[in-house]
Amino acid sequence: SLTPCFTKHQHLRYNPLRDTWVLVSAHRMKRPWAGQVEKPPEEHVPRHDPHNPLCPGNTRANGEINPDYDSTFLFENDFPALQPDAPDPGSGQHPLFQSRAARGVCKVMCFHPWSDVTLPLMKKEEVVKVIDKWAELVEELGSTYPWVQIFENKGAMMGCSNPHPHCQVWASNFLPNEPALSDRCQRAFHQKHGEPLLLQYAKQEAEKKERVVVETSDWLAVVPYWATWPYQTLLLPRRHVLRINDLTAEEREGLADIMRRLLTKYDNLFEISFPYSMGWHGAPTGPHLTEDNSHWQLHAHYYPPLLRSATVKKFMVGYEMLAQEQRDLTPEQAAEKLRNLSEEHYKTRDN
Amino acid sequence: SLTPCFTKHQHLRYNPLRDTWVLVSAHRMKRPWAGQVEKPPEEHVPRHDPHNPLCPGNTRANGEINPDYDSTFLFENDFPALQPDAPDPGSGQHPLFQSRAARGVCKVMCFHPWSDVTLPLMKKEEVVKVIDKWAELVEELGSTYPWVQIFENKGAMMGCSNPHPHCQVWASNFLPNEPALSDRCQRAFHQKHGEPLLLQYAKQEAEKKERVVVETSDWLAVVPYWATWPYQTLLLPRRHVLRINDLTAEEREGLADIMRRLLTKYDNLFEISFPYSMGWHGAPTGPHLTEDNSHWQLHAHYYPPLLRSATVKKFMVGYEMLAQEQRDLTPEQAAEKLRNLSEEHYKTRDN
Ligand SMILES: O=P(O)(O)O[C@H]1O[C@H](CO)[C@@H](O)[C@H](O)[C@H]1O
Ligand SMILES: O=P(O)(O)O[C@H]1O[C@H](CO)[C@@H](O)[C@H](O)[C@H]1O
Repeated sequence: SLTPCFTKHQHLRYNPLRDTWVLVSAHRMKRPWAGQVEKPPEEHVPRHDPHNPLCPGNTRANGEINPDYDSTFLFENDFPALQPDAPDPGSGQHPLFQSRAARGVCKVMCFHPWSDVTLPLMKKEEVVKVIDKWAELVEELGSTYPWVQIFENKGAMMGCSNPHPHCQVWASNFLPNEPALSDRCQRAFHQKHGEPLLLQYAKQEAEKKERVVVETSDWLAVVPYWATWPYQTLLLPRRHVLRINDLTAEEREGLADIMRRLLTKYDNLFEISFPYSMGWHGAPTGPHLTEDNSHWQLHAHYYPPLLRSATVKKFMVGYEMLAQEQRDLTPEQAAEKLRNLSEEHYKTRDN
Repeated sequence: SLTPCFTKHQHLRYNPLRDTWVLVSAHRMKRPWAGQVEKPPEEHVPRHDPHNPLCPGNTRANGEINPDYDSTFLFENDFPALQPDAPDPGSGQHPLFQSRAARGVCKVMCFHPWSDVTLPLMKKEEVVKVIDKWAELVEELGSTYPWVQIFENKGAMMGCSNPHPHCQVWASNFLPNEPALSDRCQRAFHQKHGEPLLLQYAKQEAEKKERVVVETSDWLAVVPYWATWPYQTLLLPRRHVLRINDLTAEEREGLADIMRRLLTKYDNLFEISFPYSMGWHGAPTGPHLTEDNSHWQLHAHYYPPLLRSATVKKFMVGYEMLAQEQRDLTPEQAAEKLRNLSEEHYKTRDN
């Protein structure tokens, strides 16, 4: 096996979902850090804050009053990046000055009525309700929009401006860059190898084991071979599933279970509420519903920024922005660390 | 003109250097910000700090003593991501588990013996020395390495861990993702339109004027039509130049002049030493020196993170990482703001 040398010598690894390479320089972890330290996340969030626009019964920016919700709660983003009615900027333009209409909707979804819980601290049946709502939204918005992006920015470090547990769902009349690229890569692989890329990948990883973080009979969470963020993970079903709304009731229970286990490990890594951005990628929708999308496999990406501790993150800056992503520990080292962490949350939910 | 509607309605713009789109939602600037605020950069950096490993005469991590340098100073990064001698991880691999050898060198270059100056506060002849050194390095390392990435991470917010004015130069035995993509895009444009992409672009922008920030007879600094970072700029010569070492002495003087003017505006925007990551892209080197690279045009990208003030940055997180980049003001608004700022630095160099 080549693994031992990978921890000593820098090398490149190929990301088949993006057709790019990542520079892995594991020996860089030895470098001392004298740069910016982050503020660790707030440990004591009040269960209900009368001034938090996301809590039940409170008033939002637009004057609307939230219902006294007791499960998930969905509303339109008060400052949406996408609105349904933007005009077309017109066509017939210069190749270097091209613009296109962008239309869509932006929704916010609270996971729970309490501000002091997060997904790993929620009960399994409460997480299932979140998954059901995700599926419902993809079904509903996906009936017309070609892409429905479910994503969660967790923690102030990831630009999240409200501690209440929530995610966002942005649907658009266009296929954004990242899913368009992933679509091309998965299609090309399928055509060449006769099997969906991520199905073959899941099988290989389940056999190799060295990058697996958590697995169940239906689901797999791995640090992908091509991970760029230090503790990045890829979460996917073992069965061929195109979209989140195709998951069976049993698979949704399994997903709630593996999400709670994975996120508990994340929180236990540095004993803080672990910041990340995560999101779901599944086969495109709207006009693509009638096309053959069998090259697709549903999956979630977790991109957490922390590298060394609760306060030192990986900076994806100069070299990464201008040349190529670079990481400071191997995916195998990250997977091993996560795998060995307890599945008992360092903090117990207080209820 | 469509410009007025662009500030009210979200739309997509095409980036011809990356073959991607950016979502422009100018109305998002109205959204209140309750999220993370950054620590503003340190205003009072001592001119010489006996404990700073970048200052003249001091000892570095590896025990080496810096010379008493009085201009630029170059040394090998003590914790390099790329080393010249890494072994080949071997070939004949599974398509989903591909790795490649990565070899190279990482250098650090101090701009000036003083820690309390930055490029816009340096004298023009001092900046010319930096440019000459950049050119020398591209010439030297580029004689064998296919890519030489010059980049500057400025400010703690951009992962810079030392306030002493410096940049880095990483040379590699591979063409990294970003220049490889830019190479493909420029080549395709040149083949189709018979003119280098960025030469045509510079001409168009010099005529349109609305995105120009600073211009001289030889150089142009614009907020590109497809800018993703709030105050991103593109700096390029008007003449067809492939690489930084092809610049004439006069063009290097002109570059020192426009850099000082652009960076003074940046600093004046929020009256702080403006954080950014910047870097140079020119035609590939090493084995590519003997190929036709006439589709290339030398240029620098400046990627500054700040959005609203000295302490509120743009977070490129969930939607941006998983779907597509999104910006909150139009490139024209950003260009106008920068253009109207004084070219007199808010802080005068104290010497
Ligand atoms: O080499 P430095 O300055 O210590 O490190 C900085 O720049 C590198 C290149 O962009 C990044 O990989 C690091 O994350 C960042 O902290
Ligand atoms: O909509 P929010 O949570 O206010 O905003 C956050 O997520 C968005 C989508 O990733 C980003 O564009 C913003 O920069 C970030 O602060």
